[in-house]
Formats: sequence, structure tokens, C-alpha cells
Amino acid sequence: MDRTRPESIGVDIGGSKVLAVRLTPDGAIAATCKLATPPEAAALVERVLDAAAQVMERSPAGYLPLGVGCPGMVDRDGRAQFSPNLHGVDGFDLHSELAAGRPRGSVTLVLNDATAACWAEQELGAARGADDVVMVAMGTGIGGGMVLGGRLVEGAHGFAGEVGHMVVAPHGPPCPCGKRGCWERFASGSGLARLAQEAALAGRAPRVSVLAGGDPEAVRSEHLVKAAEEGDAGALAVIDEFAWWLALGLANLANALDPSVIVLGGGLAEAGELFIGPVRSAFGGLVEAPAARRVEIVLARFGERSGAVGAALLAGEKGTGPDQPG
Amino acid sequence: MDRTRPESIGVDIGGSKVLAVRLTPDGAIAATCKLATPPEAAALVERVLDAAAQVMERSPAGYLPLGVGCPGMVDRDGRAQFSPNLHGVDGFDLHSELAAGRPRGSVTLVLNDATAACWAEQELGAARGADDVVMVAMGTGIGGGMVLGGRLVEGAHGFAGEVGHMVVAPHGPPCPCGKRGCWERFASGSGLARLAQEAALAGRAPRVSVLAGGDPEAVRSEHLVKAAEEGDAGALAVIDEFAWWLALGLANLANALDPSVIVLGGGLAEAGELFIGPVRSAFGGLVEAPAARRVEIVLARFGERSGAVGAALLAGEKGTGPDQPG
Repeated sequence: MDRTRPESIGVDIGGSKVLAVRLTPDGAIAATCKLATPPEAAALVERVLDAAAQVMERSPAGYLPLGVGCPGMVDRDGRAQFSPNLHGVDGFDLHSELAAGRPRGSVTLVLNDATAACWAEQELGAARGADDVVMVAMGTGIGGGMVLGGRLVEGAHGFAGEVGHMVVAPHGPPCPCGKRGCWERFASGSGLARLAQEAALAGRAPRVSVLAGGDPEAVRSEHLVKAAEEGDAGALAVIDEFAWWLALGLANLANALDPSVIVLGGGLAEAGELFIGPVRSAFGGLVEAPAARRVEIVLARFGERSGAVGAALLAGEKGTGPDQPG
Repeated sequence: MDRTRPESIGVDIGGSKVLAVRLTPDGAIAATCKLATPPEAAALVERVLDAAAQVMERSPAGYLPLGVGCPGMVDRDGRAQFSPNLHGVDGFDLHSELAAGRPRGSVTLVLNDATAACWAEQELGAARGADDVVMVAMGTGIGGGMVLGGRLVEGAHGFAGEVGHMVVAPHGPPCPCGKRGCWERFASGSGLARLAQEAALAGRAPRVSVLAGGDPEAVRSEHLVKAAEEGDAGALAVIDEFAWWLALGLANLANALDPSVIVLGGGLAEAGELFIGPVRSAFGGLVEAPAARRVEIVLARFGERSGAVGAALLAGEKGTGPDQPG
């Protein structure tokens, strides 16, 4: 962070929460705000602007640049095209709707959340100084972001990074995207919950069932994480299974892209100390020629805030330049 | 091809053949030579230089720049680090050995074969004009190459593009790389042979067995291709199965990288007219949000020669610049 950027706001839209940060010119987080994601897209724009307002000390100079990260396929004009884990936004012109709620000419930028997160970690975070970085953000689904050769990868249409829908088990469980056996059925927050439910239903994780009120079908990732933190053997076995699936997809990405750093982020990475060890050790058995590789697997510095920080950084870098087209 | 490059030579080392081309400054192939790949690495350097000599009309000005594509993990210094489909080259310093056989200072460049192939197709071939291109080269294994944002992706250590070892079926057949269920076990030339053998052994492809001399275990991809070209139903069913697996990996790559063009190359693409239709149609059922995407799947313009053409182009672009380090 040697360049000077204007102060800026970043908002990350997640499956369950809308998270905003205000970033100072030297890249520090000056304020954070977390609100619940509303159930309909119509209310989403207002919620995003509300979260932004709550972290913004409005200056006499006017509105700060606003960057917004959204899960799924966001095109280069800032329209949400397909987002299986965010109800009702498909086809929604997020950029235009947000821009309409702000003064004409104030910078408003909308892009994929994990792509923004990767930028944050590469510029200021756990992958600082690395030119080839893969970000894997584990929340309700799995988002992906990439910096390759020092440049952010957005793809031909802005859709790069949809690694959560990499099929890793063709006959595996169905995914909200319409296919079977997508990586995020195993290695996201909902994937961990699914593995934990299977273990609970099979009687392999009694402590997890207890924490879920005795109902295996009510098991969520938080119950599994709590039991694992207590040292429960059944829960730790599920963590190992989860770590293996996570490592499988990371190995596929490392084979394809040869990053020097893989950053694990998203809400689930807040529990990363539980699984980072098992992931690293499973990775060595799954990547091609591990002895010839040098790739670090690390936790995001900004945790669940990487997406908001990255969106703020990118909006700030755009500064007073032209607004996103469309 | 608007820039002027010097005339140059490219050699592609394959599992079964060493293929050389000489490229004119305007990008035309002036000469081609194909020799058998020797069984040991020690003889490989001489074979490569021999193939290069056969396409080179030596000029009074001296040796032409030489680019060499090699399958597997080739580091940035031109050393072969791990190449599961090329016997005995692991750890072999191809660049130094080749450079030692040429006059001091003549450009010698060694890189991954499919990365070179991608450059050829993006500069002069089937993906000309596209900034985001994925190349999938199907031979004994599967090689991958990428141009993203108009730039060749080589990875942090030169190892990018090892997409053949993307695990797509964790309990699938063993791979020479040491894992199970790698994509190239299904969607390469040897993958097609394996699927054809399974069909022949199960009695589902009698014509293919006949072409293999009555021995299902002797079935090779050529027998399957011949039977399919004759219109044999059993062989065409194997083509459909192969196309589905090929499309699965292409969809995974399209989800991750959002290219506008995917180029299918390598020796097997010479039979591409047989499977390009089934691949395109299976792809639509496997990629996330097909209706929102615009991605073409095309056959390589240079067929099995893409790797050699790309290596020649890259060596030519390097022209009289400094030699590869190491």
C-alpha cells in the first residue's frame, strides 16, 4: 500500500449478511457494519446503501467511492447474472440501481465478491507481494478470485472465479446450480453442514447432534465447529473429511494455475485454525508433484471482511475516474 | 500477425513423436518434420536438435531462434520437473542440454507444450483476437494453456496449465501421476482408449474389438475413431461418453476462468469433427448458467502442430534478446 487512494467504502453482499467497511487512504479499516441480507432483491439495494451510510462519515466534499461485491456471476456492467446462493437477484441490474441511489457521478463499482476479496489479500493481506494468488472464499457457497501475473483476473465477461461449481464428484449430491457434485457441496459452509448432518444421521457425531438440539437434520456448520473446538472425535473426523474435499479442489486449482499463495477466506475461514493443518497435509497427497511445488496455503488476513475491503480498494483506485459502464 | 518476427523453429516433444516446424516471419509454416520420441531422455536432446535441423535451411546469418514445448511441469529455467507421460525426463535440464548443442547466444527457449499451443492459437489460429482463451491439448495425456486478459499465463513457477490432473472422479481409475480419477484418465487419447477398452470388454463395442484384432485389451483410440467414422453405434456411444467427460472438465475450466474461446488441440483433435458436436451439447448441461455465457468451443487451427508453432512464435518474439536464464 504505497500509493495514495481516496477514502472509500466497500460492501460485501453475502448469503446471510451485508458487510460494509470504510477504508482510510492508507488501507486501514476505519469502520465496519454488518446487517442481515434481506430475503428479496428489491430490498437489497436499500440495505447496501444503508450499510454504506452507517460506515460513512460524510465529508463536505461529497460521497466516497463505493465498491460492492456480490456472489455469483456479475457481468462487467455490474449486473447479477446468476447467483445460486443469493435469492432473487438473477438478472438484477445492481450497478444501475445502486448508482440511482447516489449522487450522479459518484463512483459506484459492482463486481464478484471473491474477486474483490482476492485483490484485498494480494494488495494488503495474506498474499501481499505475491504475483500469482488464488482466493477461495467459503461461505454459503464457494467463491473464487485470482490474481495472475500481478493482474486481477475477471474473465471475458466478468464471470471468472466460479470455482465452487467445479464438478468433483459427477454422481454426488445435487447443487442449487442444477448440477451434481459441485465442489461447494463439500467444501463450503453449507458443504460442511451437509457432511456434519450425514455424520450425525449415521450416529458418527453424537456430540454434534446434541448441540443441534438432538435433531441431526438441524445440524449447521456452527454446531460442528463448536464440537470440534471442544475436541470431540466425531466432529474432528468430519473436519478431516471436509479438509480432504477442500484440498481436492485447491489441488485442482493449483495444478491449473500454479499460484505461489492460496488464501482461504469467507465466513468459514474464521474457524480456519481448525482445518488449515488437515488441509495442508491432504493437499500434498492431491496436487501433482508436490515435491516440485512451492505453494503456501494461508488464511485471509481480513477474514470475512476481505470482500468488502477489496471492493473498497478497487472503488478507491478508480477514484474520480469514469463510472462503471452500463 | 502484424508484427515482424525473425524466422524461427519450434519443436513439440510428445509422448510418441517429436514434431518440428519452421515458421516464416509472417507466421506461415515453411517446413514440418515428425520423428519418433526416443525411449530415454538422454537421446531426446539429440532427437529434438535433429528435428530442428531437418526443418532449418541454415542461413549465413547463423542459427534461427529455437523454441521447444515439453509436456508436464517445465520450470521457468526450462527444466522438466515432472512429466508423467514422458518417460525419464523428470529433473532433466532440457534448456541447458539443448543450448549446449547450439552456438553460444542463439535463442533457445523451453516451456510447457500446451502453453505454447495456446499462444499459437491465440496469435494466429482458432482464437485469434480473443483476450481470454483456454487451450486443451489432448494427446497421451491432457495439457492446458491459457491466455487471460491478452497475456500468456505461466504461473508462479512455469507450471500453469496442468489441467489433465484435475481430479473429477475421486474414486476413479489410477493415473500415472499417482492419484485417482484425473481428468486425463477420461478425456485424453489414452482416456478414450480406456473407455473403448471397457466397452469392448463389456461386449458393447464389437466392431472396435474386431478392428483391434479381436483382443479388447489391444484396443487403442485409433480403433475407436475408425469404427466411429464408419458409423458403428457401439463406437459412437463411447464417443458420447468421452465427450461428456471432456465437457465436464471444460465446464470446470470455463466456470473458473470465463474464457470467450476454448480451443481443443493435440493429436486427438485431428478426429475432432467426430466429437465436437457432442462436446458442445454436453457442455451446456455442465457449465454454470449456460444461458448467461458466451463461450465458443473450437478445434485448433494448427491441429497437432499448435505446440510447435507456438514455441516457434515465442522463440521468434524473443528474437535476439537475452537467452532463457538458467
